[in-house]
Amino acid sequence: MTPFTWTLEAVDGNARAGTFATPHGSIRTPVFAPVGTQATVKSLTPAQVDELGAQMVLANTYHLFLRPGDELVAEMGGLHRFMAWNKPILTDSGGFQVFSLTDTRKIDDDGVTFKSHIDGSLKRLSPEISIRIQENLGADIIMAFDECAVPTDYAYSRLAMQRTHAWAKRCLDAKRREDQALFGIVQGGVFSDLRAESAREISAMGFPGHAIGGLSVGESKADMYRTIAEVNSILPADKPRYLMGVGTVEDLIEGVRRGVDIFDCVLPTRLARHNSAMSMRGRLNLMNAGYARDERPIDPDCACYTCRHFSRAYLRHLVNAKEMLAAALLSIHNLHTLVQLAEDMRAAILDKHFEQFAQDKLARLSAKETEK
Amino acid sequence: MTPFTWTLEAVDGNARAGTFATPHGSIRTPVFAPVGTQATVKSLTPAQVDELGAQMVLANTYHLFLRPGDELVAEMGGLHRFMAWNKPILTDSGGFQVFSLTDTRKIDDDGVTFKSHIDGSLKRLSPEISIRIQENLGADIIMAFDECAVPTDYAYSRLAMQRTHAWAKRCLDAKRREDQALFGIVQGGVFSDLRAESAREISAMGFPGHAIGGLSVGESKADMYRTIAEVNSILPADKPRYLMGVGTVEDLIEGVRRGVDIFDCVLPTRLARHNSAMSMRGRLNLMNAGYARDERPIDPDCACYTCRHFSRAYLRHLVNAKEMLAAALLSIHNLHTLVQLAEDMRAAILDKHFEQFAQDKLARLSAKETEK
Repeated sequence: MTPFTWTLEAVDGNARAGTFATPHGSIRTPVFAPVGTQATVKSLTPAQVDELGAQMVLANTYHLFLRPGDELVAEMGGLHRFMAWNKPILTDSGGFQVFSLTDTRKIDDDGVTFKSHIDGSLKRLSPEISIRIQENLGADIIMAFDECAVPTDYAYSRLAMQRTHAWAKRCLDAKRREDQALFGIVQGGVFSDLRAESAREISAMGFPGHAIGGLSVGESKADMYRTIAEVNSILPADKPRYLMGVGTVEDLIEGVRRGVDIFDCVLPTRLARHNSAMSMRGRLNLMNAGYARDERPIDPDCACYTCRHFSRAYLRHLVNAKEMLAAALLSIHNLHTLVQLAEDMRAAILDKHFEQFAQDKLARLSAKETEK
Repeated sequence: MTPFTWTLEAVDGNARAGTFATPHGSIRTPVFAPVGTQATVKSLTPAQVDELGAQMVLANTYHLFLRPGDELVAEMGGLHRFMAWNKPILTDSGGFQVFSLTDTRKIDDDGVTFKSHIDGSLKRLSPEISIRIQENLGADIIMAFDECAVPTDYAYSRLAMQRTHAWAKRCLDAKRREDQALFGIVQGGVFSDLRAESAREISAMGFPGHAIGGLSVGESKADMYRTIAEVNSILPADKPRYLMGVGTVEDLIEGVRRGVDIFDCVLPTRLARHNSAMSMRGRLNLMNAGYARDERPIDPDCACYTCRHFSRAYLRHLVNAKEMLAAALLSIHNLHTLVQLAEDMRAAILDKHFEQFAQDKLARLSAKETEK
């Protein structure tokens, strides 16, 4: 398959199953991509990430720009070789992280100046710099440099959206490598008119894929789901759609239900480091003394390495004894849960029973156990 | 092979190659066993420990007695099932750890009372209690409860040795399970007469294997190597010999040269957590900025997962960014280094050129790079 070909294989309601070809292999969607912020999915080897079923990982431009530096990564043969991951990689633009540094960054129409969280030195990111960094890193999918505003402030959301559009054009102009797909990002907070305007403007620029940015950052679930539906009703069907930074069981199902193809999130690995196991029935905190003699795996229906080999009692022991293996085993399980959910949704879409699948799974996340 | 059969396959000088059969498979010696103190080889899954070539792991009675408790482990099906390791396991007796609690333990002829390092509660270990705990844990090889004295204090070494002999007999009497091999431990500090007496007394008790305890605890290398040679000249050849707690490249070679078959040590995983890589050419500290752009693996001759996939530059990045994966990748490499060294020594013994092998390897650990 020619790189960056998008094949829409099935549509069921608004849910879609497709394939996106990249230079490092094809991605079957819906897909959940584990996050490897600093060129490592925390606590796991690439072999483990591969074994748990991940098709693609994400790495962060902001972090790798500061440490070890994108030029060093390029000298070492690029990100795939550096981190020993031979399947697709997606890098974000650095925008989200920089704008999160509320107190130590200054935005102008050209870009952003900010203080490094590592050594306090002044650094600069702009559309052109972000693209240069992402070309040095060498991911298969790279992202336009955007401004992510506080989603409930209309005036700021409008300004940030306009800047995002101007910057998207500059990213397209700056891009040189032919072996990377640059995705445009829709902004506009939780405001229907801004999101519609942004979806139209970004769609018109000819990107090979589109992302929905600026969600899951504090707005209500209702606002988030409505916004996804509104944006996807405008984004063209013949390009993949990526909902950035979203990764709960519930949000994956609701996202696919509204036409999203690609997800990523730090949540599964972050929860793992806080002793929390995700599952299709809700979350378990393995610190709980109630698991001390529990011979069951985290999820009896789960086929991950952790659930095939270890009891809750053993995991509780590791957590209690502050053993590093706890984070690795819980990361494997949590990531597998979302990776497998995406695959199961794909199968349901291809079989044309997605809505029944979604309702069944959401019902099992009972009120008591629903993720918070 | 009937469990606990020891087959001596080759002797070259004082170096030996053999096989020790256990209920969970045969151990080919010389062998290095990674330590999984709290029922986990720190930062690694059992699949990773298996893949790096380990034939057996060690777990600590002291730690597991206190947390999660040996009765809980027994309820969960025993240590093999609890930690998902289906190959041989060895447990120590708890003696070494308890006697290390210099300020919070009280020794009498019956046993030791000590304060738990976890909650400060008073606990007791004795030969009978240690055997009961080890029977609950269910390892293939279990160890007699011994007293490890300060190795350079003659009067105390003599007293501790006598107590060790009395306790060894009590351990034999207390033992009930037929599917575990109980090894006796030789003590006596660095004193030739005490070590000789201990080796004779312990040998006479009919254990299926013997250990040399109380070394690598502060004495000089010369004293350590001399003591090993003296003890092994007395221990019978028709039983395996285990040098407890020893695990540098140099000490493994010098130990095998003097007739040792089995080794264990926390050093490889501890060094890994301190950013240090072992190798047949000496150690590397991956914090060193000189490795920032070093495309080579830790050891170009090493076939471990880490060396097959990652550059020093990447490992240095992980260490610098305080990523958990650094400890896992360095643990894989360090453990593989000793596991492979033991296998290479076995091959050299079977080929009857061990002495040349030993001299070549020791020469490569040049003065500048020799392990400290």
